[in-house]
Amino acid sequence: MLFQDIVMLDEDFQIRQHMYLGVKDGRIAYLSDTPPDAGAFGPVYAHGAGKLFIPGFFNSHSHAPMYLLRGYGENLRLNDWLNQRIFPFEDQLTPEDIYWSCLLGAGEMLRFGIVSTSDMYMRGEALSRGFADSGIKANLSLGCTCFDQRSYRELPAYQDTLDTLAAWHGYDNGRLLVDFSLHGEYTSSEKVARGVAEAAWENGRGIHVHVAETKEETQGCYERHGMSPVAYLAACGLFDGPAIAAHSIYIDQADIAIYKEKGVTVATCPKSNLKLASGVCPAAQLLAAGVNVALGTDSVASNNNLNMLEEMKTFALLHKGVSGDPTLITPAQALYAATKAGAVAQGRTDCGALKLGNRADIVAVDMQGPYWRPAHNLLHNLLYAAVGSDVYMTMVDGKIRYENGEFMDFDWERAVYETEQARLRILAALAAKA
Amino acid sequence: MLFQDIVMLDEDFQIRQHMYLGVKDGRIAYLSDTPPDAGAFGPVYAHGAGKLFIPGFFNSHSHAPMYLLRGYGENLRLNDWLNQRIFPFEDQLTPEDIYWSCLLGAGEMLRFGIVSTSDMYMRGEALSRGFADSGIKANLSLGCTCFDQRSYRELPAYQDTLDTLAAWHGYDNGRLLVDFSLHGEYTSSEKVARGVAEAAWENGRGIHVHVAETKEETQGCYERHGMSPVAYLAACGLFDGPAIAAHSIYIDQADIAIYKEKGVTVATCPKSNLKLASGVCPAAQLLAAGVNVALGTDSVASNNNLNMLEEMKTFALLHKGVSGDPTLITPAQALYAATKAGAVAQGRTDCGALKLGNRADIVAVDMQGPYWRPAHNLLHNLLYAAVGSDVYMTMVDGKIRYENGEFMDFDWERAVYETEQARLRILAALAAKA
Repeated sequence: MLFQDIVMLDEDFQIRQHMYLGVKDGRIAYLSDTPPDAGAFGPVYAHGAGKLFIPGFFNSHSHAPMYLLRGYGENLRLNDWLNQRIFPFEDQLTPEDIYWSCLLGAGEMLRFGIVSTSDMYMRGEALSRGFADSGIKANLSLGCTCFDQRSYRELPAYQDTLDTLAAWHGYDNGRLLVDFSLHGEYTSSEKVARGVAEAAWENGRGIHVHVAETKEETQGCYERHGMSPVAYLAACGLFDGPAIAAHSIYIDQADIAIYKEKGVTVATCPKSNLKLASGVCPAAQLLAAGVNVALGTDSVASNNNLNMLEEMKTFALLHKGVSGDPTLITPAQALYAATKAGAVAQGRTDCGALKLGNRADIVAVDMQGPYWRPAHNLLHNLLYAAVGSDVYMTMVDGKIRYENGEFMDFDWERAVYETEQARLRILAALAAKA
Repeated sequence: MLFQDIVMLDEDFQIRQHMYLGVKDGRIAYLSDTPPDAGAFGPVYAHGAGKLFIPGFFNSHSHAPMYLLRGYGENLRLNDWLNQRIFPFEDQLTPEDIYWSCLLGAGEMLRFGIVSTSDMYMRGEALSRGFADSGIKANLSLGCTCFDQRSYRELPAYQDTLDTLAAWHGYDNGRLLVDFSLHGEYTSSEKVARGVAEAAWENGRGIHVHVAETKEETQGCYERHGMSPVAYLAACGLFDGPAIAAHSIYIDQADIAIYKEKGVTVATCPKSNLKLASGVCPAAQLLAAGVNVALGTDSVASNNNLNMLEEMKTFALLHKGVSGDPTLITPAQALYAATKAGAVAQGRTDCGALKLGNRADIVAVDMQGPYWRPAHNLLHNLLYAAVGSDVYMTMVDGKIRYENGEFMDFDWERAVYETEQARLRILAALAAKA
């Protein structure tokens, strides 16, 4: 496929006009301001006029199957939210429920221009099938918790991770990758934390972990271990290889130095952190220290959508507002956090930018909305004025997966039907218990 | 027109299914869960299925003609932003430029479901024609500044306000109303501030004023007058009648008590305040004290869109996040701030809710996006998951003004053409000066 005479965002976050981008074998095989030989890349993309072409977004922290819980627990304190709403509902989920919810969560991401996500959930087979069938890329991981004396290798999440690695890691030319996960410091013993690190490095994979999301968690860690969550997890070995530390709100300069030294990616989730009243991640300080800062949506239960343009805008606005410095978070920094930073965190070094040789992860953003005029600067319009549903087309690995309301890889209506049956069944079961 | 078997938000912010809403003579003349007599309200609205009907939004602080400056000054400190970018550009605006820009600014509001705006700008005739031709409702005002010894009645803004009052106040069955405006404490003398108050109350109109937007302004007011901006403006008489105090970030308990006692509306502009790094208005404290808190977009130069769903979402998320209390700002409070609170501030007591006898200011929100499922609670989906462009139709005073990409009252393309000519002319003039 050839994208002909398009407006696009290049790898340096500059807008370039009248460009030609050819896709072959899932990669960007041509990129120039002059046309390629006629027919060299097959059909010309028919809807390129009036669009801005940008690299697909990378979501660095999600729980896709929580699709079913959107709007279910609102305006509650974290403990009430988890214990009264989220956990009882999740206890009722079957693998089939997780499959269909994952499909819809991944579909929503595609609709908002997300081409890949770092997801933490449970039930590896159902989760993998959901991501596989949706058409999205994913680094999936099975978060473990443990409140007793077992080791990581005695936990179901370990065996499930090994099975999922064997069955799904590398699926569809690397579209699915499988990582390891510790849910967090406060939900497992030190033995389990160390076990996750050992297993991950032994298998040559990465780690996804929640870190310092709330003040209580962070204070509790000091009481339990005499050090910060970042220092504790580092001491347990969790940052001795590729790691994503989600949230990281209550961190200090020493923690930032650990992240920098260990090459940890911080997945910041500004909307979720605001909605649950967790606080604000010191993202500007992390960026200033040279830490890889990537954007995550978290789940729709605490967001309540998977809209990366909105996440990116909130990210850029919030850090200006709370710091008093309007120069913080440039458009390039925000775009990087939503694209390349997440690709780097997933170990996908051939992704995250519209660049010759990279995977063809391409999003077409419609610029017809009134808020796209005037065009003093399209990059600023994209970051501050655009809305998520301006995403018109999402291509992953050279295949169009979403376009203008249609999902190409799966039956959206069927999935909506199946999840609605699940939702009604679960609500009835919860009502019967109450 | 009859809206038949619709899902709607009632005046108590409850979702109601299977409702019938009839419009006659610009008002809601029928509202029931049983159908009216056949033909009593003319044609049935054809696109009601899959929509959520909500009251139109009221924007309580805007500068619509700044449409032309979207994306023109970015990532700058306030003084640089104003002096290097905004003021030099605005100096070049002709009345015709203001007319066309106002038309597009108002059009963008309609596109995002805003039915009325409290706007502060200059050039009363051009501004009025812009709002009149767009189809939106507006309380417009001409902000005055004065750095010399003249009185308010010696300033052009005074005469312009009187002329605009005479020519446009009450236009189209009250669709346009004209108020008075002082730009702010820090941009005029006490004599002028007092003069604005006298003139407003003498003419039986309201006042629109910027208050305590930045720390510098507030500290400066203490140095200049020995009191807070709120106390100073109250002492000058500006709150002795209907008043909108935009921003109000740097206020204390005594200021809040003044607002409550005087019945002042605070127009809070969360996105603009974040983007310019001004800070966060203590909206939750204002609400707790019983002050009327309404939402404003400010201008696209500091937002960068006029998207009330996004503003409302930012409002609800931000105050949870910065306070640490996730129970702050309920969906009903956020919706009220975006609708009824602004109608009250404009003195439009028959607006702001879908209620029998009210003006028919009705917005249809499309619920087809994947992020509208599941439907545990449509109110939460509207507030937290929806995107601004889900607005499908905007009706003002019983007439459809925007629907599915089309503006009914004016030629959008012509206005885009005219503003683009203006933009190029101004940029050339500024380049020639530089």
